[in-house]
Amino acid sequence: MPELRKDPISGTWVIIAGERSKRPSDFTESNEKKQGGFCPFCYGNEDKTPPEVLAYRATGLQGNGPGWSVRVVPNKFAAVQAEGEINPQTNNLYQTVNAIGAHEVVIESPDHNASLGSLPVAQVERVMRALRERFRTIGQDPRIRYIQVFKNSGGTAGASLEHSHWQIIAIPLVPKVVEQELANFREHYALHRKCLFCDLIAQELADNRRIVYQGADFLIFCPHASRFPYELWIAPQKHLRDFGEMGEGELTGLARAVKIAAGKLETAFNHPPYNIVLHTVPVQKRHELYYHWHLEILPRLTITAGFEWGTGYFINPTSPEMAAQVLRDVQLAQGSL
Amino acid sequence: MPELRKDPISGTWVIIAGERSKRPSDFTESNEKKQGGFCPFCYGNEDKTPPEVLAYRATGLQGNGPGWSVRVVPNKFAAVQAEGEINPQTNNLYQTVNAIGAHEVVIESPDHNASLGSLPVAQVERVMRALRERFRTIGQDPRIRYIQVFKNSGGTAGASLEHSHWQIIAIPLVPKVVEQELANFREHYALHRKCLFCDLIAQELADNRRIVYQGADFLIFCPHASRFPYELWIAPQKHLRDFGEMGEGELTGLARAVKIAAGKLETAFNHPPYNIVLHTVPVQKRHELYYHWHLEILPRLTITAGFEWGTGYFINPTSPEMAAQVLRDVQLAQGSL
Repeated sequence: MPELRKDPISGTWVIIAGERSKRPSDFTESNEKKQGGFCPFCYGNEDKTPPEVLAYRATGLQGNGPGWSVRVVPNKFAAVQAEGEINPQTNNLYQTVNAIGAHEVVIESPDHNASLGSLPVAQVERVMRALRERFRTIGQDPRIRYIQVFKNSGGTAGASLEHSHWQIIAIPLVPKVVEQELANFREHYALHRKCLFCDLIAQELADNRRIVYQGADFLIFCPHASRFPYELWIAPQKHLRDFGEMGEGELTGLARAVKIAAGKLETAFNHPPYNIVLHTVPVQKRHELYYHWHLEILPRLTITAGFEWGTGYFINPTSPEMAAQVLRDVQLAQGSL
Repeated sequence: MPELRKDPISGTWVIIAGERSKRPSDFTESNEKKQGGFCPFCYGNEDKTPPEVLAYRATGLQGNGPGWSVRVVPNKFAAVQAEGEINPQTNNLYQTVNAIGAHEVVIESPDHNASLGSLPVAQVERVMRALRERFRTIGQDPRIRYIQVFKNSGGTAGASLEHSHWQIIAIPLVPKVVEQELANFREHYALHRKCLFCDLIAQELADNRRIVYQGADFLIFCPHASRFPYELWIAPQKHLRDFGEMGEGELTGLARAVKIAAGKLETAFNHPPYNIVLHTVPVQKRHELYYHWHLEILPRLTITAGFEWGTGYFINPTSPEMAAQVLRDVQLAQGSL
């Protein structure tokens, strides 16, 4: 019998159509093959992007040239504009704000053919450090209310360039999705005096069926109300509200968890399209006690269609219990960790 | 300068990245060509679907055989189950309800190669009548709280069978999306003593830049905060809350508007993938004064990616003012109306 499950973090409901349960081989071949060709993210083409805002390279090397390990540049086709003041306007029923903010690209490695799951842990750690640095810097801009860190991997998941990268879009508003999550955390705290996500982690560990990996600091699991088949959440086991306040000691554990999660998906589905989305406390609400940052990995093996757009609910043909079991069993190349 | 615009109906914000404005020819070829092959929705294959729950055919013809003009059958791979009682369960943080409801398919015509925009108005009217009839009947089931009527056109938009059809999924909960819209209507009513959507229609007509078509009863326009390029809304100009209470007199006008909207998109983009989604008052809240049913047509020319999943906000490269102008200028075949 299919089940409707409610995600306690977002409040979204999902139909888990368990009888249709789908193993990796049941999905249409989803290999996002790289085509090659000219790439502005490769060594030697640094002048084809706007000048870098951050790059890690050996000392002595010049900026905006080769030799970097991670490079961050403004998006050439930015969805939001860096310069200007916030200027809200109302025309009768309609509200408009000029889209002020930041839109940056974090190039994951110089290797055009690398994928997140294939990079060494030390390189993933550099990527995580770059994301945290830009998150901290952008968060000092008083015009910004939320910083969305995300990754689109594969054309079907919205990546317009195939060279592996992350993106950062900072906006002058707190998204409704985040407001709703904060409200859910606040309500839980009022009743239980505890963090909703900490309690969720405790319940997942006790249940154990949806756990994919438990490191020293980070947990990977398939959420109870997974919207997408093989959806994975990565969360710090310690109560941490703010991605930007993550310390040096946590970066390695996060990098290891990110590499394992991406590597397992890339192995099980032969490089499927996926999105990774950061959820964190809004930059100007760092005082909020009630949040717990985490990453959500959303494999794009199904299509979001009329039912989802109309209701905001999802239909997922794979139970997260089965997904976790499949992904636990996926072996990664020895020595890669 | 890109703009953030708020949709007053849903409360969602959209980045209209006007500088990237995209005309139909700027989108990758999106023609959803039909492949043919065996089709359970064609004449002669009626035994390959579950038995019909409604069909229009000449008197004297047998049920579950050829000769029908519109045919409604339960979905063979239903996401929800027809039989059983609602049985909510709580396990600590997690809420689960068995997914009771109805999942039906409305086959638009016997013609495998027809598209919604190519059907005669009289045939589209039969489809609208069938949707209304099933909506009314399913709405009498006391277990049901919301009936989502929708259409997926093209594989990229989630249609798993190419023979043109609609779907109905009835669920035992009112979706959060709909609750939020009801709250927005209620708030507007409390302040202005008027329907939010009626006021929105008045503003659109006064502005005129986003109107695509105005019939006697129905309006087609591109909403101010369009999430998708060339998004179209079809709404009754009279204050009507409930799709199910639509009268005979309105069916023809609706059919004409649906045919025009679909026909213009299919002509401008050579049969692009799209979803159509009904928004209507929940079946057990028919007493609510504050709603206004409408159809939303969502062309799937862009990809929903990390930013959209993380924030619930959208990035739209085509301003609705330009989209409306382009679609107003699209000519439909003479005599087809």
